[in-house]
Amino acid sequence: MFESAEIGHKVDKETYERELPALREALLDIQDELVRKRGFQVVIIVSGVDGGGRSESVHLLNEWLDPRHIETHGMGAPSDEELDRPPMWRFWRALPPHGKIGIFQGSWYSIPLLDRVYGKTRKVDLEESMEGNVRFEKMLSDEGALILKFWFHLSKPIQEKRLKALEKDPRTRWRVTERDWHHFSLYDKFRKTSAEALRLTSSAQAPWYIIEGSDERYRSLMLGKIVLEAMRLRLNSVHNPSHSIPSLPNLPRVDNLHILKSLDLAQKLDKSDYERKLEEYQGRLNVLTRDPRFKKISVIAVFEGNDAAGKGGSIRRVTGALDARMCQVIPIAAPTDEEKAQPYLWRFWRHAPRRGRLAIFDRSWYGRVLVERVEGYCSEYDWLRAYNEINEFETQLAEYGIVVVKFWLSISADEQLKRFKEREQTGFKHYKITDEDWRNRDRWTDYEQAVCDMVDRTSSDLAPWTLVPANDKYHARIQVIKTLCDRIEAGLKRVKGTK
Amino acid sequence: MFESAEIGHKVDKETYERELPALREALLDIQDELVRKRGFQVVIIVSGVDGGGRSESVHLLNEWLDPRHIETHGMGAPSDEELDRPPMWRFWRALPPHGKIGIFQGSWYSIPLLDRVYGKTRKVDLEESMEGNVRFEKMLSDEGALILKFWFHLSKPIQEKRLKALEKDPRTRWRVTERDWHHFSLYDKFRKTSAEALRLTSSAQAPWYIIEGSDERYRSLMLGKIVLEAMRLRLNSVHNPSHSIPSLPNLPRVDNLHILKSLDLAQKLDKSDYERKLEEYQGRLNVLTRDPRFKKISVIAVFEGNDAAGKGGSIRRVTGALDARMCQVIPIAAPTDEEKAQPYLWRFWRHAPRRGRLAIFDRSWYGRVLVERVEGYCSEYDWLRAYNEINEFETQLAEYGIVVVKFWLSISADEQLKRFKEREQTGFKHYKITDEDWRNRDRWTDYEQAVCDMVDRTSSDLAPWTLVPANDKYHARIQVIKTLCDRIEAGLKRVKGTK
Repeated sequence: MFESAEIGHKVDKETYERELPALREALLDIQDELVRKRGFQVVIIVSGVDGGGRSESVHLLNEWLDPRHIETHGMGAPSDEELDRPPMWRFWRALPPHGKIGIFQGSWYSIPLLDRVYGKTRKVDLEESMEGNVRFEKMLSDEGALILKFWFHLSKPIQEKRLKALEKDPRTRWRVTERDWHHFSLYDKFRKTSAEALRLTSSAQAPWYIIEGSDERYRSLMLGKIVLEAMRLRLNSVHNPSHSIPSLPNLPRVDNLHILKSLDLAQKLDKSDYERKLEEYQGRLNVLTRDPRFKKISVIAVFEGNDAAGKGGSIRRVTGALDARMCQVIPIAAPTDEEKAQPYLWRFWRHAPRRGRLAIFDRSWYGRVLVERVEGYCSEYDWLRAYNEINEFETQLAEYGIVVVKFWLSISADEQLKRFKEREQTGFKHYKITDEDWRNRDRWTDYEQAVCDMVDRTSSDLAPWTLVPANDKYHARIQVIKTLCDRIEAGLKRVKGTK
Repeated sequence: MFESAEIGHKVDKETYERELPALREALLDIQDELVRKRGFQVVIIVSGVDGGGRSESVHLLNEWLDPRHIETHGMGAPSDEELDRPPMWRFWRALPPHGKIGIFQGSWYSIPLLDRVYGKTRKVDLEESMEGNVRFEKMLSDEGALILKFWFHLSKPIQEKRLKALEKDPRTRWRVTERDWHHFSLYDKFRKTSAEALRLTSSAQAPWYIIEGSDERYRSLMLGKIVLEAMRLRLNSVHNPSHSIPSLPNLPRVDNLHILKSLDLAQKLDKSDYERKLEEYQGRLNVLTRDPRFKKISVIAVFEGNDAAGKGGSIRRVTGALDARMCQVIPIAAPTDEEKAQPYLWRFWRHAPRRGRLAIFDRSWYGRVLVERVEGYCSEYDWLRAYNEINEFETQLAEYGIVVVKFWLSISADEQLKRFKEREQTGFKHYKITDEDWRNRDRWTDYEQAVCDMVDRTSSDLAPWTLVPANDKYHARIQVIKTLCDRIEAGLKRVKGTK
């Protein structure tokens, strides 16, 4: 992996000074094009061995490019707000918007790599983390991001020499810490582990650029030229990640049965039963969220369903049981322009609740595989890859200890028609029914197909779908709140330590 | 203050149940209008004595209104990210966008009030905090926000009875804590202090609504009706806060002298002097930002100036001296739609740096009193009130220990013309010159007037303006970086504790 970066690459002063002005001008020009087009973001990871020139490279990029359109992130110790969310949350929130360059010195590689070198984790943990990184970068790349990963390498003797030289010079002495020497003592382990990590994560979308770090001029020219050429290539080509599209987006239907049809929509609850049970489960939900262990978990509840299936009413029965201060309902509408300048899932990640809180999504990230699929608002490739991205997202949430509960509220076409008509007649409900609702009704079977595929492809042990027969509102609301109670209770049981 | 809220207000069950359905329907209707129009935000503060019905009221609003368009904030202990910024930052970030209702249980009143009751602060501190609150609420109101401040009151004997009743019932016992009884022992002090606070902050834009809290039905009906009527009034009237506009936006000019003319634009530095000094000051700046005390402060540097005055070049000389990870350059462009749905200063508050960091603004909040004033992009009242709001903003930053440094880079009209022409001819600089730049030039004297007023009205000891003669770029850059060093050094000296 590092062979070519231990052979003593060098650039003489004359060559460097001859090439630099044109390189700098070209970099500014290409950055200007990026800023003006605002079509995608550039993510640059700067990593490698201590003394290999990481800080210098970050500094150089900020000097050569226009720093007003660069966001540089050190990603040191996470804040308490970050520790209260899944580990990737802090990287999502730090992603640059379209038109900007985000430089990460310290990235989604740092902690898994160091943990492994320090012997805190096993080989399989590292491998798992690296697979997660590949999926994350594939998502970014599919979303149009240009990802440039630099690894600045030094051979062992050169690194030792370099650390000593830095230490000797009073102006640079502060930069060499005990931690650096400790790392040096782990050089062989670090080299082997990072070679493994780089091998696992050098993908077609985001290959590693390994640069020998000992000669500053060589290192700087390489860095500048790779950034320039990669940006130029990306700006001058049509970005079309969908060439890898699978051939069969829709499964053939050979009989007339599907999972929605297997639901018994006739299930009912009478009013007195409903009121008794509602009080019971609201009380239980309230008690569960005041359990001391609840401070260690959080809850994401997703409400999807046919139009007029009663999502809002069910949500109100849930929030009615809760302390409003610990709960946030997030209605998913059209994305804002800040959200449009980011990968699809960004606008959901930003609402990930802190520990001890609940986030209730009224519609959700499933929009992509439902309305966007059916109405053709995104490409086939986009909604097909969404299943994997959503599974990855929910796995990260669940593995962090977030209870992910997903409801599909299902009503029959006849029941929907009845409710639409009722709404049109009822004074303060008429705003709930729009032309779009009527249009969606025309595509009933397409939506049915999309729902079945969604359930088949995204219902997992970690984040299962609950299909709720909702022709009877009482029945639906009780099933929702009971399910939520059961899932939270199971989540609390997984919390370590005494009650 | 509380007299009318100690007389035993009551509503009988029959009246309550008769009035409730119409009230709830009307509330939903009016909220729907708010959501559809998206013209402003509603800020509801819920406060008062323990047991007065604060939590119940928050819960009720969430039950009666559509919780999808409500954001409820408990505002408990601040997070570390919040502690790293001025106290008001957490309220700014929690402001609801236009079309939403933000409910604050725990607000900008809580800490000043409790600190005073606990004897941690003096009377003048409370008064100062309350004056700050009035200014904050005036700004919100001027920005169109509807502010509703509720105070739920109980007389002393009733509060005691209530706490005892809550404690007796096993279902509500958990709600009464030692803290509540401790507060009760301070009842008289609390009553006196809050009466004072309410008196100081009951303004025309944001009066307090004091509601007797002992009877749940009375309290709930009052709450619901006030919210309804206030929203109805606001939605049905043309919001025009500018009636209070002062009569003289522009001072008469009776001679031909002004502060920009008093600058000696001919100041120069030759290249070798420049290079020597640049290295010296960049070194000094770097050392200052690595001082252990720097972790306790932060820096906001504002760059304003004539078009082509060399802001970008000066900024690069500053960032060139810094670790890119601790510094963020924020170019101010057109606001995003999330920013448009908030008060003017929100988009600057959101970039307030954490401790130990620098934020460099390339253009800033002064846009309102410069380009927006001159080009008529906002009303006269808006830019006139901006001076006060900006002073308030910068005072909060400075009092928190943030070093606020503001540069106006000044060039002559002739020098600007020369630079415009140069830019049009230079390859990679041509993008820097736009039609707008040429248009702005036509209004040179209007801008001059605006700059003079800005300096006169916003240069303070806490956040002084530095006027930089910038016809000579070398001179300008050195003055900028030297000023920054001096101000940071002074800021470090104010940090308590040893070096």
